Amino acid sequence: MNFQEIIEVRRDGRRHSESELRVLADGAASGEIPDYQLAAWLMAAYLRPLDDQETAWLTQAMADSGERVDLTGLPKPWFDKHSTGGVGDKTTIIVLPILAACGMTVFKMSGRGLGTTGGTLDKLESVPGFRMDLGIAELKAQAKQIGLAVTGQTPNLAPADKALYALRDVTGTVESIPLLVSSILSKKIAGGAETILLDVKSGSGGFMRTAEGALDLARALARTAKACGLNCRLALTDMSQPLGSVGNAIEIGESLTILRNEASLDGEMRVRESCLELAGLSLASVKLAPGVREGREIAEAALGSGKALAKARDWFAAQGGSIDAELPMAPVQRSVAAGKDGWIAEIDAESVGVSVIAMGGGRKTKNDTIDPSVGVRVHVAVGSAVRQGESLFTICAGSDAMADRTEKSLRDAVVLSDLPVEKRPVVLQVF
Amino acid sequence: MNFQEIIEVRRDGRRHSESELRVLADGAASGEIPDYQLAAWLMAAYLRPLDDQETAWLTQAMADSGERVDLTGLPKPWFDKHSTGGVGDKTTIIVLPILAACGMTVFKMSGRGLGTTGGTLDKLESVPGFRMDLGIAELKAQAKQIGLAVTGQTPNLAPADKALYALRDVTGTVESIPLLVSSILSKKIAGGAETILLDVKSGSGGFMRTAEGALDLARALARTAKACGLNCRLALTDMSQPLGSVGNAIEIGESLTILRNEASLDGEMRVRESCLELAGLSLASVKLAPGVREGREIAEAALGSGKALAKARDWFAAQGGSIDAELPMAPVQRSVAAGKDGWIAEIDAESVGVSVIAMGGGRKTKNDTIDPSVGVRVHVAVGSAVRQGESLFTICAGSDAMADRTEKSLRDAVVLSDLPVEKRPVVLQVF
Repeated sequence: MNFQEIIEVRRDGRRHSESELRVLADGAASGEIPDYQLAAWLMAAYLRPLDDQETAWLTQAMADSGERVDLTGLPKPWFDKHSTGGVGDKTTIIVLPILAACGMTVFKMSGRGLGTTGGTLDKLESVPGFRMDLGIAELKAQAKQIGLAVTGQTPNLAPADKALYALRDVTGTVESIPLLVSSILSKKIAGGAETILLDVKSGSGGFMRTAEGALDLARALARTAKACGLNCRLALTDMSQPLGSVGNAIEIGESLTILRNEASLDGEMRVRESCLELAGLSLASVKLAPGVREGREIAEAALGSGKALAKARDWFAAQGGSIDAELPMAPVQRSVAAGKDGWIAEIDAESVGVSVIAMGGGRKTKNDTIDPSVGVRVHVAVGSAVRQGESLFTICAGSDAMADRTEKSLRDAVVLSDLPVEKRPVVLQVF
Repeated sequence: MNFQEIIEVRRDGRRHSESELRVLADGAASGEIPDYQLAAWLMAAYLRPLDDQETAWLTQAMADSGERVDLTGLPKPWFDKHSTGGVGDKTTIIVLPILAACGMTVFKMSGRGLGTTGGTLDKLESVPGFRMDLGIAELKAQAKQIGLAVTGQTPNLAPADKALYALRDVTGTVESIPLLVSSILSKKIAGGAETILLDVKSGSGGFMRTAEGALDLARALARTAKACGLNCRLALTDMSQPLGSVGNAIEIGESLTILRNEASLDGEMRVRESCLELAGLSLASVKLAPGVREGREIAEAALGSGKALAKARDWFAAQGGSIDAELPMAPVQRSVAAGKDGWIAEIDAESVGVSVIAMGGGRKTKNDTIDPSVGVRVHVAVGSAVRQGESLFTICAGSDAMADRTEKSLRDAVVLSDLPVEKRPVVLQVF
């Protein structure tokens, strides 16, 4: 079949056949379909969105476009977790050891960060010695032994998605729900998952800016996951304020604080809360708990008993790192204090994310290198009561000039109210 | 301005600024905007059509994207003619000498044929010695002296259109009226025209299949031409049956028969009728006649007096050819006769065009070479009364096998009715 005819089907809003979508995915993966034809199809798909059946077919076709990871030998159910990403989102690093401590086995492929949404790989690489170059066989053996392993995506995992995503990024066609759904789920399926937990974030620091958009995406993910035979649970979580501290090494430090069950600051408590809910949902999804509430209690017990920390210790060691390693620390540490008594009414997640990128702590484009040592420790959250002079943030910067700029951005990102402000739930909805 | 933002403006159906469309045209012309971004914009523009103001801005920006032909020194008004193309459309070759004989000066750039719509250049090149490689200065001198000159487009004429058209052709975005309009008019403006005659054809042998589509295109052309400051007249003409004979050398022969005022067959008379209407409209448009009817009478007189033929003689000679030259003739000539008495109810233009391409008389793709000698002489038209055994067509083919295939196609393309069928007007509407 001529790809131009496939473009015309989409353009005219007719329904694609499964075989048309396989031609698309295979042609995108092999490079046989030129970029300009893929780009035309993508814009047509943006403006004439795929229906649920088409989305499921495209997801499967993209999953089949490269190699599939075979998790045979690992205990079932084969579980994976995905977050749409957000400023300070480090939940994978905390949730995975909790789940392993509760008897699950998780073999996870993670991505790198781009823009204000960080990447788990980048965070783990800030741990001295942490290896992301282990082979699939080694990692499977590790997961079998200690219950978890994390690596980057193999180069040939869902190559159709890789090709289409690169084009979407430069043709204004990223924000299409069916295209987002097939991109997310195809990689999970190709990675071997059968049960997945999806964390869909909404707010200025996440991909979906509005709660409505995030809910639409979550519902579409749930429908397509079901159509593709996945057991899927979803959490809709808040990303209007940063999820705790931001910056690669800083986030590893905060994760370990929570795994040590030493969280105390409002920022840390919010991260902890998010992780316990996600862990509870995960445990319920694989029937290790009768429901989310019970799952959450089991997860909290794993934090309290030190079992989750022990799993993190084993995990870091298995991949060449150590939870006791000294993490990179930026030369300038500057506290940003409240100018008056009051309540935190807002901390704009996007602004915080952008200021960390500006310090070199994130990527503007794919080829940027990251300084893992810089970032912003976020001590408070919306609803925190603060006293004049109390530290809201600690900026970790490469220079005083950099700290000056960041301090200015942070002061603009925060709204302090004279009247009490309610704390906002971090998990908005689970389903 | 980032081109991705320009894509997003189109995608979201917002209005482009003039400067955005200049960025598009200049970036397409220079190659600075990658094809995949142009393709995404084109699909967005197909699905979210440009409004009239945007279309006019794009037209001017594309006209300005390369060199402009300067007709200074030629008498005004600077006139050009454009046809949307059709099977057997040879009107330029007849109308131009008529107009020159009536006192007009026409400097025209023509295109090559692609698909079933032939190109004036290809037709003229079937005349032995006819030169298309003369320089602009020589051609201007020729036009000044004898009133007409025809050449191919200079390589740098509206290069933005060249780049966008090549992409539209392979991304399912050809049939967008604003994109068609800007493509047609930008080349005319860059070619120096101030007054233009547009021949918009409708029917299976033309670009617009339906009369409604052709009318929409004609109206959009008229609006944009006006917005760009062009004096523009339009004819909507029928292309449901071939416009006389088809094939490059055959069409030159038919053109000369009409210029000699020797047309007699129904097919030839239809071509003659079309040319007289177009010439009349042209003469009226430049005020050499008070109205179309009077213009038509002046044109007919130029045919009758031999003045038009004399202009054609001068023209062919000026460009290295001769109206008396022996034209290439295919080795096999086969008459296709009517199987019974009756009236011609249909001759499907597209089928005739496709069968001539199949004989090598047209291009399927841009790089195909053309055999100028093959084609189909069409003796009849819809409404012609025919007797059993009377010749409807003469096939001019390279071989008997080729003639066999063409004969079969032609028999399928013709419907013969037992009841009288009315002749169809060739010019449907002028405005």
